[in-house]
Amino acid sequence: MTENNHEHWMAKAIELAKKGLYTTHPNPRVGCVLVKDQQIIGQGFHLKAGEGHAEVNALADAKQDVVGATAYVTLEPCSHHGKTPPCADALIKAGVARVVYGMQDPNPEVSGRGLSKIKKAGIEVIGPVLEADCEALNPGFIKRMREGLPFIRVKLAMSLDGRTAMESGESQWITGPEARLDVQRLRAQSDAVVTGIGSVLMDNPSMTVRIDCDDQDVDAKTVRQPLRVVMDTALSILPEAKILQPAKQACVFCVEDDLENEHLDALKKKGVTVRFSPRGEDGRLDLLDAMEQLADAGINEVLLETGAELAGGFLQAGLVDEIVIYMAPKLLGSSARPLFQLPLDTMGEAVELELKSVTQIGQDLRLVYRPDYLDDDFGDDFDDGLEE
Amino acid sequence: MTENNHEHWMAKAIELAKKGLYTTHPNPRVGCVLVKDQQIIGQGFHLKAGEGHAEVNALADAKQDVVGATAYVTLEPCSHHGKTPPCADALIKAGVARVVYGMQDPNPEVSGRGLSKIKKAGIEVIGPVLEADCEALNPGFIKRMREGLPFIRVKLAMSLDGRTAMESGESQWITGPEARLDVQRLRAQSDAVVTGIGSVLMDNPSMTVRIDCDDQDVDAKTVRQPLRVVMDTALSILPEAKILQPAKQACVFCVEDDLENEHLDALKKKGVTVRFSPRGEDGRLDLLDAMEQLADAGINEVLLETGAELAGGFLQAGLVDEIVIYMAPKLLGSSARPLFQLPLDTMGEAVELELKSVTQIGQDLRLVYRPDYLDDDFGDDFDDGLEE
Repeated sequence: MTENNHEHWMAKAIELAKKGLYTTHPNPRVGCVLVKDQQIIGQGFHLKAGEGHAEVNALADAKQDVVGATAYVTLEPCSHHGKTPPCADALIKAGVARVVYGMQDPNPEVSGRGLSKIKKAGIEVIGPVLEADCEALNPGFIKRMREGLPFIRVKLAMSLDGRTAMESGESQWITGPEARLDVQRLRAQSDAVVTGIGSVLMDNPSMTVRIDCDDQDVDAKTVRQPLRVVMDTALSILPEAKILQPAKQACVFCVEDDLENEHLDALKKKGVTVRFSPRGEDGRLDLLDAMEQLADAGINEVLLETGAELAGGFLQAGLVDEIVIYMAPKLLGSSARPLFQLPLDTMGEAVELELKSVTQIGQDLRLVYRPDYLDDDFGDDFDDGLEE
Repeated sequence: MTENNHEHWMAKAIELAKKGLYTTHPNPRVGCVLVKDQQIIGQGFHLKAGEGHAEVNALADAKQDVVGATAYVTLEPCSHHGKTPPCADALIKAGVARVVYGMQDPNPEVSGRGLSKIKKAGIEVIGPVLEADCEALNPGFIKRMREGLPFIRVKLAMSLDGRTAMESGESQWITGPEARLDVQRLRAQSDAVVTGIGSVLMDNPSMTVRIDCDDQDVDAKTVRQPLRVVMDTALSILPEAKILQPAKQACVFCVEDDLENEHLDALKKKGVTVRFSPRGEDGRLDLLDAMEQLADAGINEVLLETGAELAGGFLQAGLVDEIVIYMAPKLLGSSARPLFQLPLDTMGEAVELELKSVTQIGQDLRLVYRPDYLDDDFGDDFDDGLEE
């Protein structure tokens, strides 16, 4: 069996893993195919936490004896007892002859253990195969495991001249319906949507995933709503704000010494989770601390949908992993609002970006960039396969 | 012979016409192939004014008897005596059996006359074939003939956040070397490069075409320098400005009642052409009048390379035919200079654009847009084939 065959079957496993794009949170998206005599005899993917892992689902799906088969799995099989038994044990017990894996477990504390267990059972282990593509399935899970932070994607809709709203704040709608639907998909694949109190006061958005039945990529009935998170230093949000409905899917970050107790009480009474972060060096809420808290709570991917001020703050804090711009074919003029609030004086201070992809979405362009300040060692691992 | 064959040979003629991209000014780019028994027996294109037209060059190139051949020509053959004899007569005299044309002459006063002459001589005439592509060869010549105005292309280099320079004016370099080379090609295909006195005072640019020998699209030795034009209402430009060197390739527009005679004398003494335009409704130099004067002087394509103020002025005057943006993967921040000086208040005032093409040039993106305010009847004729 050649290397090309391995890539062929691993690509099938990757396609399966993508079926969990909107649902596996906080687990990773994983796919598995079982191959015997150049035929797929079983396939599976992880759908949601608490349910079967990809390997177990593939074994259950097998149409014939799997003894002697090769298992292709996008992520190293787990070796520990979680909500389900270890997949490494299941593969060993099933009698597969060979395991081909896409990437090792990104958790440095357990990485390699599943593979060792399989090797010790006398099974051949080959990999990593299509590693970049396998990593691209789970940028958030990987970053959370490796760095204790979520993968943070900033989404902005702007005009060709880089404006996100008129001076008055008027901004509906800069982009067309196709781009707005694409944003719904970005929301649906995110564990949390983060915005600022300024956006809440201006637009009173709900920031839920709204998918209509014509969109075949996401099922309107089963779509999981992301946690909605508001950065609100002084805790001035009203309990009636749409973004806090329902309260159990909402969370507000504030600075403890800034807030008025009656506000805190009103929110708690409603059932909203209030989290405290320290004040950062710039006097504002420490965004790094807040993001660490979200990672600790199992948040893999964050979609930041906010105005220039908070988006600029995340960028200046070095927290942005990806910038997704929807650029409309129009000019909003020179008094309209800027993309990022970023006071820079010289060309040398310019924030360098790397273009990852350009896609036409309706009349708009979707542009995906990666800030160059990111650690190259980490970033290169999974960005190569992004958006392809 | 099928329609597809006609398109096949016309496409060859179009490729030939493109060889005149940088040189035919003020004439149109035209290509011609002579076909007999499904073989090209002669081909030609117009290289420069005063030299042979495409049809005459193709006849001279013919390797065998052209009697009975089909002539494919991107533009209706001329019927009048200019610097060279009429091409219609040359084709008749040569004995071709058929003439297939790409588009009629855009000059409403002579359009169709060449074709009539050929038909009257008993030669079959077929066309238009690949009309949009043939029109795309000569947006400037066509607009000048039909509307008495040049085709005006605004070129801007900007950051992702829509900024063209830091607040201080610092702007070297926003885009990469590949994009800057692409701008040289845009200049080389333009009859005139237009800028404003503000850009001259800030950067003292020469705005000549600088092509190095590695660039195979333009020959550094034979490239024609475009007329350099400065919009300078009060005629405050210094005779030593680089853009006025050499003086015979430069032109300054001003408002007559605004200027100081000693400035005028100094420029005239140096040999610079000074043109007067009236004051427009907004109190500034009437850009429409200035562009009409350039068209009268044989300028087909104008490249506007300037700052936000003058670019905004052209846009607000409805004079912009095409916007070419080079967008660099970086953020210059919210205090940097805007793309167009355009004071708009509501979304309803936004200038709508149509995206014509997106191309990656080095690390930058080249984005070509067409303002939606343009007359659709005219614009649709030739924009379809642009940038393909």
